[in-house]
Amino acid sequence: MINFTVGPVQASDAVRAIGAEQVPYFRTAEFSEVMLENERLIKKFAHTTEDSRVVFMTCSGSGGMETAIMNCLTKQDRALVVNGGSFGERFVELLTLHEIPFTEIKLENGKALKPEHLAQYENQGYTAFLLQKHETSTGVHYDIDIVADFCKRNGCFLIVDTISTFLCDPFDMAATGAGVMITGSQKALACAPGIAVMILASSALKRVEDNKCCCQYLDLKLALKNMERGQTPWTPAVGIIRQINVRLKEIEARGGADAEIARCGNLAKYFRDKLIEYNLPFEVVSESLSNAVTPLHPTTQSAYEIFLKIKDEYGMWICPNGGDMKDTVFRVGHIGCLTERDYDLLIDAFLDLKKKNFI
Amino acid sequence: MINFTVGPVQASDAVRAIGAEQVPYFRTAEFSEVMLENERLIKKFAHTTEDSRVVFMTCSGSGGMETAIMNCLTKQDRALVVNGGSFGERFVELLTLHEIPFTEIKLENGKALKPEHLAQYENQGYTAFLLQKHETSTGVHYDIDIVADFCKRNGCFLIVDTISTFLCDPFDMAATGAGVMITGSQKALACAPGIAVMILASSALKRVEDNKCCCQYLDLKLALKNMERGQTPWTPAVGIIRQINVRLKEIEARGGADAEIARCGNLAKYFRDKLIEYNLPFEVVSESLSNAVTPLHPTTQSAYEIFLKIKDEYGMWICPNGGDMKDTVFRVGHIGCLTERDYDLLIDAFLDLKKKNFI
Repeated sequence: MINFTVGPVQASDAVRAIGAEQVPYFRTAEFSEVMLENERLIKKFAHTTEDSRVVFMTCSGSGGMETAIMNCLTKQDRALVVNGGSFGERFVELLTLHEIPFTEIKLENGKALKPEHLAQYENQGYTAFLLQKHETSTGVHYDIDIVADFCKRNGCFLIVDTISTFLCDPFDMAATGAGVMITGSQKALACAPGIAVMILASSALKRVEDNKCCCQYLDLKLALKNMERGQTPWTPAVGIIRQINVRLKEIEARGGADAEIARCGNLAKYFRDKLIEYNLPFEVVSESLSNAVTPLHPTTQSAYEIFLKIKDEYGMWICPNGGDMKDTVFRVGHIGCLTERDYDLLIDAFLDLKKKNFI
Repeated sequence: MINFTVGPVQASDAVRAIGAEQVPYFRTAEFSEVMLENERLIKKFAHTTEDSRVVFMTCSGSGGMETAIMNCLTKQDRALVVNGGSFGERFVELLTLHEIPFTEIKLENGKALKPEHLAQYENQGYTAFLLQKHETSTGVHYDIDIVADFCKRNGCFLIVDTISTFLCDPFDMAATGAGVMITGSQKALACAPGIAVMILASSALKRVEDNKCCCQYLDLKLALKNMERGQTPWTPAVGIIRQINVRLKEIEARGGADAEIARCGNLAKYFRDKLIEYNLPFEVVSESLSNAVTPLHPTTQSAYEIFLKIKDEYGMWICPNGGDMKDTVFRVGHIGCLTERDYDLLIDAFLDLKKKNFI
């Protein structure tokens, strides 16, 4: 199977080799070194301030999103949240559950965020801002500079979900002034799913310190305390943390974050050019594309039926959408160990479906 | 390295082969089948009632413990909790955090639970009982029948942490009447760490339904709803769930839970007999041993120094203790892919340390 979804994605041979190894005992200096090296490389690739810190939580990216909210926001905050798809909606659900006062900036699927969306919220006393830098469900890559500038002017604490954009699109955490960024092991890190990686800037560390987390398992005070020595309060997904280590060093050896972002961008461009070249009956439905994924509306067939057909008859996974978009949108990812040749095979499959009048 | 810790433990070749594979996309009928087969086999091996259900949470065993408390107990409960070591203490911390009224039955390290410990709590209106069937930190295997009988007489909802005893010692969930059992992927399941497996009896399902969970990520209502179709609300540790599948089928093919328990028991007996045969300067410090682990007090050297020496000079991990027991107790596990030959090598290492007057 060739995997064009947005996670889990295809891992490199070196990452898979770690998966084949016995998982070592981890309350050791040796494992602590792996953890601290991971922290160092994540900080480097995300362009953080020196005093930022990293934690590796054994949970999904959504678990990381909730961890950020539970540990960094309180009922005294007033948050703004951009909701332009399933993951924005998840932030809304989480703010509701945790009783954080908020205002929702609702964007239609596929629409970009523009300065006029924020204008009415200037100087209104907002204290926090939550944003998917890339709304994975719709493939919209929001302009984080607009939000970062707003947050700086208004003194807002910024939580950025970079789950599906980290290492796909440029990100400079220090420049944005973000307090928290979140990513997952199974996106461009291209390891097995199970670890949420979170970076906390000094503004976030202060909020964590002053806050009482309602969940011990996701308590960042405990995670940060243990991470001082490269450890975790609970048994982490040791195997995945070791995969992340191999992967980060692989990226470093191949030119660092910029080279990985360029590689991802080139794959995205290759695929998008082919779509036009072959005049496939798919419309790109995002106003602002990430390198991570191309969201497509098929004009002649149900998106989900195309997903099933490509899986069952061509041995490839494209990424189906859920909910309202199940039949109208599918996505093709550009994350992980993929090559131009893989996209040639996918285009061939689409052309075959066209020839058979399936699309 | 030979791994005699209590987790992560050594995996079989078949489990490691899954680790080497690409992690597949999981919102598919194929992955749902894996999940539902896992549920069926877990229920079989734990001897559950037919209407019990299983969820696979991407978190540690401690995350599973908190999930049980957050979803199944309320401030209207009055809980009894046995605290005979680090994991009993964790239950106490969690009950405190979640403001569940409770009474602690504090046992000294190494001591068994006896009917007289419970006598004073009869007919006192307790509604819940939390127990480590095996307190991993001290290697004490509590007599669950005493607790199960108490719970039946007193109408208590029983939460059993079987994290390090499931598939090591006999367990019949239906017979105990337990509401929840919890185990982890990295104990006798001998897969990579990252998944907590939870079984919920009908009494637990009712409590989950009536309760409001304060954490979306660990909300069992969402997990149970998705598990109806073999799915999870958030991206799970897909690779580990696939490892669990291979491992459960491996156990089934080799005679089921009883055969695995017997294998673990035989390894424990083999090691314990050798300790006596060679008159090693270690005292067994548990009144009631599990097959999972042998907790030892070395009488001539710091336990932690022995752990380091065995790791650095003999290429083996024994399991260090933390906190107060760091220097006084280490443990030797009997979980995972180990053979009598492995124990011969460990005994040889101990004998060598004795010869060198290190112990």
